[in-house]
Amino acid sequence: MDVLILTVGTELLLGDTLDTNSYYLSKKIRNLGFNLYKKVTVGDNTERLLKELRYYKDKYDLIITTGGLGPTKDDLTKETAIKALELEDEVEIHKLSLETVKEHFKGREEYLDLNMKQVMFPKNSIVLKNIKGTAPGALLIGKQNEKIAVLPGPPKEMKTMFENELEPILKKYSDSVIYSETVHIARLGESKVFDMISELFDKYTNPTIAPYFNDDGVFIRITAKASSEIEAKKIIKPVKEELYSILGDLIYAENGQSIEEVVKDLLEKEDITLMTAESITGGMIVSRLIDIPGMSEFIKESLVVYSDEAKVKYLGVSEKTIEKYTVVSEEVCKEMVEGLLKTYNCNLAVATTGYAGPDDEKAGLVYVGIGYKGKNYIKEYNIKGDRNTVRRKATRYAIENIRFAILDSRK
Amino acid sequence: MDVLILTVGTELLLGDTLDTNSYYLSKKIRNLGFNLYKKVTVGDNTERLLKELRYYKDKYDLIITTGGLGPTKDDLTKETAIKALELEDEVEIHKLSLETVKEHFKGREEYLDLNMKQVMFPKNSIVLKNIKGTAPGALLIGKQNEKIAVLPGPPKEMKTMFENELEPILKKYSDSVIYSETVHIARLGESKVFDMISELFDKYTNPTIAPYFNDDGVFIRITAKASSEIEAKKIIKPVKEELYSILGDLIYAENGQSIEEVVKDLLEKEDITLMTAESITGGMIVSRLIDIPGMSEFIKESLVVYSDEAKVKYLGVSEKTIEKYTVVSEEVCKEMVEGLLKTYNCNLAVATTGYAGPDDEKAGLVYVGIGYKGKNYIKEYNIKGDRNTVRRKATRYAIENIRFAILDSRK
Repeated sequence: MDVLILTVGTELLLGDTLDTNSYYLSKKIRNLGFNLYKKVTVGDNTERLLKELRYYKDKYDLIITTGGLGPTKDDLTKETAIKALELEDEVEIHKLSLETVKEHFKGREEYLDLNMKQVMFPKNSIVLKNIKGTAPGALLIGKQNEKIAVLPGPPKEMKTMFENELEPILKKYSDSVIYSETVHIARLGESKVFDMISELFDKYTNPTIAPYFNDDGVFIRITAKASSEIEAKKIIKPVKEELYSILGDLIYAENGQSIEEVVKDLLEKEDITLMTAESITGGMIVSRLIDIPGMSEFIKESLVVYSDEAKVKYLGVSEKTIEKYTVVSEEVCKEMVEGLLKTYNCNLAVATTGYAGPDDEKAGLVYVGIGYKGKNYIKEYNIKGDRNTVRRKATRYAIENIRFAILDSRK
Repeated sequence: MDVLILTVGTELLLGDTLDTNSYYLSKKIRNLGFNLYKKVTVGDNTERLLKELRYYKDKYDLIITTGGLGPTKDDLTKETAIKALELEDEVEIHKLSLETVKEHFKGREEYLDLNMKQVMFPKNSIVLKNIKGTAPGALLIGKQNEKIAVLPGPPKEMKTMFENELEPILKKYSDSVIYSETVHIARLGESKVFDMISELFDKYTNPTIAPYFNDDGVFIRITAKASSEIEAKKIIKPVKEELYSILGDLIYAENGQSIEEVVKDLLEKEDITLMTAESITGGMIVSRLIDIPGMSEFIKESLVVYSDEAKVKYLGVSEKTIEKYTVVSEEVCKEMVEGLLKTYNCNLAVATTGYAGPDDEKAGLVYVGIGYKGKNYIKEYNIKGDRNTVRRKATRYAIENIRFAILDSRK
């Protein structure tokens, strides 16, 4: 099935709103096994929108629009699509939608008139419920079986409607599924991961293997085309096993689980109380961990020791060590870890010290230390990027290294 | 001038990459006073791209493409645009670009051949330097004066090239500028801001006034159309003054300055040493402040006091107070602030306590306390949203309230 995405909204052309809807739909269309050759964005202008819809309606099996379904006079996507399909004479009140709208505006009947246009649909169209907003969507079907799906603009409404209402219908048109799984890699950069698994690229064509990276790290996506999700999973399984045999513990999670969630599970299993003493990361490590619900069982307190004096006062770092090695050194990081374990109520300690920049020739030099079960793991990093990048990456490395320390303690 | 944006890249159609380029360019085109009625995205497919370029080249004064300028055989946007404009016979080596590429691949001459196609341009085109990558862009000019600007896909390269190279050329075509200024509002929600300034909407048509909001708060954008930026600023000035007379201290900054930067300036002026004791925000406040360079002058240390015991141990919060009022209470928040000021080396104290959720019926209840110059400012919030939203909003309110406390001390 050949699909066209048509996003509608003047705010998209003015640069006020970033179009995340077409990004989301692109992925969905790929996963359904359909073809997407083109995306188009136009403003809330009936004349131009009508021209586009008339031009494309015979050229694609399905047009999916987003935006312009609301109650205002600018919201004209559905009406324009009905006109493009020449279904004006077929329009009638959709009773179920009318009831929903009536229920919604109970006691505020003055709004009902304004919203009446939202419940009008051509007879043979499939109305799509909107549980996150008031405007229903529809799959409009023309006399020559042309199909235009009109979805709302607000991303939450659009996504929920797509997943609950439109996707199940579209699945019937799909004779194959595209299904992906992802494994998440710690510690290595993209090119290193690429090198390690390069032999697999030629070895497999279905599933395909593609590494990619973003701020959260490096990932490998394994994508299979098959007759069903179950079949696709079967194809993916041996490839995933091969990745594990090559990368081992460097794989920390699969399919969207975050490193923080993985660490939380480990803290739970090993009955750990964790504490951080953060200089360069300044609270970012502990804050990211606390983002996971239930972390209060494993983190009771933590310290931000930004100044030299704070490192001495709270952690007993020796002034001599700072003088001899400077405050950004393996030695100071080690004393920070040891100070935490000695003085405070924790059995896993995390410490960071580094130069975030920008005006420092050593900017990017960071030491991340973990202390656990009698062992210290102090690592040096040279991180490229601006102040914020250096701090965020140091935070990620620290959280990854908590996991490595716990895994190592089990050996 | 009527402009079409045409983003090129199969990754955009597969949903692998979010198209931020067209979002950025949309804003730029608006600010130049040009018209944008349509955006189109196609994949790395010469045939389809050629069809689009041939179809649109006479219909728009300018087409701006992004993507497909690299050295690989998939990168064919420039070659296709040259074909669409029938300029194949005019292509020659662009000497300056050749020198740059030679310099870049010094000692790795084997790469030179692969990159030769990047330095070939039609005679009368304006080559656009790429200081962030290897592929130059160009403004290609057809025989009937059709214009196609080809820009690279990686956002950093594209933005830098647009700003340094293409924008100055386009400004010559513009007879008016659209210029905006923004004021940033603390403490109030969007609808409240809307109410307070609603009378201004009808009063002014140039400049226009538009409030909007995102995760960082509420903003008012004032947009003027004028013959020059200087003229636009003149039109905006009295409107901005009127906003200040209505909103006063609720305006904390203008034109992109962050609340953290504003707070840093205040800490500097008042010679403040700040310390946080964070429970629900768990280090997020101090981490966000430390993101601003130079903050080490004003923040030496801070505490994450996540458990009840930590609040007692570090801050001397009374166990009786916790028992009587619960740990999420104005009273505990006040004792946290007082404990910081009494026991530690700081003269401005920030404390938070709250329920982040999700599994808590009081989720969203947060107390934010500031202590400064003998006064305590404890505020209660009921924040809607998931765990992460509650923590981020509490952090923002805390940082906003640091500013309000300092301003109040000056009265």
